[in-house]
Amino acid sequence: MAKQDRAVRTRHALIHSAAEAFERHGYVQATLVDISAGAGVSVGALHFHFTSKADVAASVEMAAAVRLRRAADQAQRPGMSALRRLTDTSYALADQLRHDVVSRAGLKLSGDGAREGGLDLRREWQDFVRSVLAEASDQDFRNEAVQPSDMADLIVAATTGIEFLSRRDPAWASPPLLSTIWRLVLPQAPQS
Amino acid sequence: MAKQDRAVRTRHALIHSAAEAFERHGYVQATLVDISAGAGVSVGALHFHFTSKADVAASVEMAAAVRLRRAADQAQRPGMSALRRLTDTSYALADQLRHDVVSRAGLKLSGDGAREGGLDLRREWQDFVRSVLAEASDQDFRNEAVQPSDMADLIVAATTGIEFLSRRDPAWASPPLLSTIWRLVLPQAPQS
Repeated sequence: MAKQDRAVRTRHALIHSAAEAFERHGYVQATLVDISAGAGVSVGALHFHFTSKADVAASVEMAAAVRLRRAADQAQRPGMSALRRLTDTSYALADQLRHDVVSRAGLKLSGDGAREGGLDLRREWQDFVRSVLAEASDQDFRNEAVQPSDMADLIVAATTGIEFLSRRDPAWASPPLLSTIWRLVLPQAPQS
Repeated sequence: MAKQDRAVRTRHALIHSAAEAFERHGYVQATLVDISAGAGVSVGALHFHFTSKADVAASVEMAAAVRLRRAADQAQRPGMSALRRLTDTSYALADQLRHDVVSRAGLKLSGDGAREGGLDLRREWQDFVRSVLAEASDQDFRNEAVQPSDMADLIVAATTGIEFLSRRDPAWASPPLLSTIWRLVLPQAPQS
């Protein structure tokens, strides 16, 4: 294995181990010793890749952003209705969060007051919900007394609650639960 | 002022100061020095009332429980319909959270993985939502294809999201926002 490959692998292992440590102990209490041990390297080796715990956290957050954005992109196909794009994207993001500790830990860091992050992944989701609802307003809310911006508030609140609740009980981010929420909130959306 | 009065006041001041410190720095990073200084007493005086930071936190959580339960009780009147009881209680709790740092910090502690609390205030709210919806099912959902337990999941998700989002932006717990959510989720409920 070339030296560069090994460096890339170690960096990936450190990001994964950091995500596990942040999920288990919280960002503030996780230590560089935990993180390096979880990746099977020394603290010195960790410092070859990262300057500080904040630097590791920023990398976890960025890796989560890449993975969550990719999951969202892959859920969307040309010709989909706006509401279908919204619901399918929510299933894809929930699936990504259920199966990937880096996505979970990075999203949690993105809303953690204990450190200042450059990204705001929650804001990205909120902007997506608002833009999809505004687009759907012409197609799906024409004859209803529902303001798309009000519906966006409800959907942002419910999906944020689901993410928070799923930290203790992953069933909150499961397809049956999501489908219950969508049937009640957007009965006019095509159901997956 | 009798000695005992002074002790009660100091204890209250410490609980208030601890809530402010937990809200500002997080439970893990708040120190006993912050907490005692905020109450205008020495760390030694703090130790007369509390054995540890965990002990202070348990008292903040308990004080929040007392205040939130009282706010919920006061919102409920004999003869109210089940759904009215639900919506009026939500306004009262949101008002309590907006105006009282002890309630906010105690509720946040109650879901914080960094310490083990004896209370579970979120669970109390979830049980309340479920019991009200089950009761309302006879009155309000008779002719609809809505399962009360599904509606309870949606309401728990949305209200949990509102509490989480209001930590960064208090407007999420404001009466206009809550009324938007209730109009969409429970159009059959009497609107405040």
